[in-house]
Amino acid sequence: MLGQYLEGVHETAPLIHNITNYVTVNDCANILLACGASPIMADDQAEVEAITAICGGLTLNIGTLNSNTIASMILAGKKAAQLDHPIVLDPVGAGASPLRTQTAAELIGKLPITVVRGNVSEIKALSDGSSLTHGVDANAADKVNDDNLWEYFSFTKKLAEAWGTIIAISGEIDVIANKDKAFAIKNGHPLMSRITGSGCMLSVLTAAYVTAAKKTQNSLLEAVAAAFCTMGIAGEVAASRMGEMDGNASFRNYLLDAVFNMTAEELDTKAKYELVSYTDD
Amino acid sequence: MLGQYLEGVHETAPLIHNITNYVTVNDCANILLACGASPIMADDQAEVEAITAICGGLTLNIGTLNSNTIASMILAGKKAAQLDHPIVLDPVGAGASPLRTQTAAELIGKLPITVVRGNVSEIKALSDGSSLTHGVDANAADKVNDDNLWEYFSFTKKLAEAWGTIIAISGEIDVIANKDKAFAIKNGHPLMSRITGSGCMLSVLTAAYVTAAKKTQNSLLEAVAAAFCTMGIAGEVAASRMGEMDGNASFRNYLLDAVFNMTAEELDTKAKYELVSYTDD
Amino acid sequence: MLGQYLEGVHETAPLIHNITNYVTVNDCANILLACGASPIMADDQAEVEAITAICGGLTLNIGTLNSNTIASMILAGKKAAQLDHPIVLDPVGAGASPLRTQTAAELIGKLPITVVRGNVSEIKALSDGSSLTHGVDANAADKVNDDNLWEYFSFTKKLAEAWGTIIAISGEIDVIANKDKAFAIKNGHPLMSRITGSGCMLSVLTAAYVTAAKKTQNSLLEAVAAAFCTMGIAGEVAASRMGEMDGNASFRNYLLDAVFNMTAEELDTKAKYELVSYTDD
Repeated sequence: MLGQYLEGVHETAPLIHNITNYVTVNDCANILLACGASPIMADDQAEVEAITAICGGLTLNIGTLNSNTIASMILAGKKAAQLDHPIVLDPVGAGASPLRTQTAAELIGKLPITVVRGNVSEIKALSDGSSLTHGVDANAADKVNDDNLWEYFSFTKKLAEAWGTIIAISGEIDVIANKDKAFAIKNGHPLMSRITGSGCMLSVLTAAYVTAAKKTQNSLLEAVAAAFCTMGIAGEVAASRMGEMDGNASFRNYLLDAVFNMTAEELDTKAKYELVSYTDD
Repeated sequence: MLGQYLEGVHETAPLIHNITNYVTVNDCANILLACGASPIMADDQAEVEAITAICGGLTLNIGTLNSNTIASMILAGKKAAQLDHPIVLDPVGAGASPLRTQTAAELIGKLPITVVRGNVSEIKALSDGSSLTHGVDANAADKVNDDNLWEYFSFTKKLAEAWGTIIAISGEIDVIANKDKAFAIKNGHPLMSRITGSGCMLSVLTAAYVTAAKKTQNSLLEAVAAAFCTMGIAGEVAASRMGEMDGNASFRNYLLDAVFNMTAEELDTKAKYELVSYTDD
Repeated sequence: MLGQYLEGVHETAPLIHNITNYVTVNDCANILLACGASPIMADDQAEVEAITAICGGLTLNIGTLNSNTIASMILAGKKAAQLDHPIVLDPVGAGASPLRTQTAAELIGKLPITVVRGNVSEIKALSDGSSLTHGVDANAADKVNDDNLWEYFSFTKKLAEAWGTIIAISGEIDVIANKDKAFAIKNGHPLMSRITGSGCMLSVLTAAYVTAAKKTQNSLLEAVAAAFCTMGIAGEVAASRMGEMDGNASFRNYLLDAVFNMTAEELDTKAKYELVSYTDD
C-alpha cells in the first residue's frame, strides 16, 4: 500500500520550496534528491512568493529562525495556501524558547498547514505547554511506547481536529493522525538520534510525499506514513551497513544512500505499522 | 594541456573569497581544499572588502541571496575589480524568481565578471528571458546535445562578446566560450545531478583555477575548461566507486575525494573535449 | 587521566548552545552528538538568552559573523556569565579583517570567556597584531615547533593571565595554558588541515568537555587538553582508515566516526602530551 507513494514521488518529481535552518539544510536538499524530488531553498521576503509559485509544496522549519525568515514563512505560506500547495511545518525546538513556541503557534494559526511534523516534546509544548523540551531533542518522559500508545492516539486525534492538520510525531514509535485515523509506525533505529537532521530530513521527505500524493489524488495521511516508513527503513538499512569503525558520519551517509536506493517493493515489505480507524469506513 | 592548470592551483594555493549560499557552502569549502586552494567565506558588508583584499579571487553565488548579501557582493566585487582579481558569478536559480534574475543581471552590469558559470536555463534566462528555469535545475528542453551544439557555440560566443566575460554552461555537454574560442566538454556523470551543490562546487573550483592561471599568466579560458574537466572526471571516478548500497551521499563524498586525488596526468589523460576557434590563430 | 573527561561527557550529556558560522555548522552539530553531547544552534537576539538558559555551555564562533550575530553573542554570553556556564570563543579569521579582530577583542573584553581556542595566527593577531593571518588558516611563520615551544609556553601563560582565560592554540603541536600550567599536545594528522571545520569542531568539542568538567568539578584545563587529544587521536584514527581512493571528504567522515567510537581507555592510551607546571603544586 505505502510503496505507491514512493512511486508517486519518483513519477512526479515534486519541486519543494524549503525555508529551513542552516544547520541541516544540505542534508535536507540531498534527501529530497535521494527520494526523486527536487529542492529549492529561498528565504528572502523579496522572492519567497515567486519561488513558492514555481514549486509544488512548501516546508517551513523554525530551527535557527530569525525575524526576517519568520516574515518570509508567512508570505510563502500564504502564497502556498492560494495555490493549494501542501505545507509541512517542522516546529524545531518548540518549547525551548518562547520565540520558537510562539512562532510555531503563529504559523499554525495563520496558515492552512497540512502536516505538523515534530518530536513528542515539541508537539506537546505546542499543544499545552506541559513539556519541557530538552533543546531540540525529545524529553525522555514524553516518549511514546506500547503502554501509552492509546493515549497518544487520543492526543493526536484531538490535536488534528483542533488544528485541522495531520499530526505527525516521530520517535521510537511514530504516531501519525488526522481526525479519523492514526498510524503507529515501528520502523527506525536508535542511531538516528545520534545525527543532526533526522527530524529535518523527515520533514522535507514528508513534504515530497504529500506533494506527490496531492498531485496523484491519493491519501495525504498515508503519504505521511509512507514518508515516515521510508525514513525508518532507511535507518534500519543504514544501521545494517555499519562497520566496526563507522560512527555517526558514516551512518548519515548510509541513511541518505538508503533513501536513494529505496524501492516501492522494499517499502511495502519492510514497513511496520498499525492502522487505527475512528470511523466506520 | 589542461593538467598544467591543476598544477598551477597546487603550486599557488590560491585563497578564494566566497559569498555563497548556505545550502552547499560546506561542500564548496571542502572542494577548494580538495584541489589545493583555500576557502574563506564572509558576507557582511563590514568586512567583505577587507577579506577580498587578502584573497586572490572571488566567487559570487546568488543561491539563498538576500538584501544584505547583494550589497556585500557589489562591495566585494568592486574591491576585486580594483585589485584585478578574477570574479566568478554563479547565477543560481536565475529565471526562478525576479530577484535572482535581476540580481544576476545587476552583478553582470556593475562588475567586471571574469566567468559566468551556470546551467543552460540560468544562462538563457539571463540572456533573453526565453527559458523557464525548473527551480535550480536546468530545463530539459534547453539541453545542449550534439545536434544543437553549434547553436550553443554561436549563442555563447555572442553572449561572451555582449557581457565581456567567459560564458561557462555546465550540463551533459559543457560549453565554455569567450569571443574567440569555445570548448565543448563531455566529461561527467548523470549522478552529479542527484546531489545538491554540483554547480556551486564547480563554480568555486573554476574560481580557484582562474585565480591560479592569472597568477601564472596562463589562459583563463583554458583554466575554466580545466576546472570543468576536473569536475567531470571526478564525477566519472566517483561513479566507478559506487557499490550496490551506495547512493547520492556516498557519491558526494567520492566526488570530493576524486578532486582531492586528481593529478595533472589524470586530467590530461581523461579530459574529453573539442576546441573550436573563431579566429585565425 | 584524560579519559575521565570523555566519560564525564558521556555521563552528563551536556547541551551546548552554539552561535557559529554557517560553513561548518553541520559538522559542529554532528561532532557534539558523536562525543555524547547535544547541540542547539540559535542566533537570533530574540531567543539566544532563552536558549543559553536551558543549556550547560556556550560556543561563540566568529566565522561568517554579521552585526546581528555579534549582538546575539554578547546577549548569550552575558546570560551564560550570569548562570556560570563555560564559554568557548573561536576567533575564526581574527587578523583577516578588522571586523573579526575587533569583534573577538570585544568579546574577550566584555565576557568572562573560559577558553579562547584558535590557531596560532589568530591568537597572535589578538595578542599584538604581529601576525598576518592567511585567511582562516595559520601562517606558516607562526608555527609552534619543538624549537620555539618554550616561547609559546611563555606567550600563552602571559596571555592567559592578561585575559583571565585558558588559551588553547591548535596546530601541529597544540599549546593549552592557564597562568599556572601548560600542555603541549602532539596528537593529530596533517590531513586535518585539508578539511574545513577542524578548528570549529575542536571548539565545540572543547565546550562539551569543559561543560562536563564543570558539572563534575574537574579541572577545566585538563578538560581542554582532553578535548584536543580526542580530536588529534581521531585525526590519527581517520588517517589510518584512508584507502587509495579516499580524499578529504572520506577523511571528514572518518574523523567524526572516530570521535563517535572513542573510549576513555583509547584516549588515555593514545594521548601524547607534555605537562609543564609554573607553580610548586
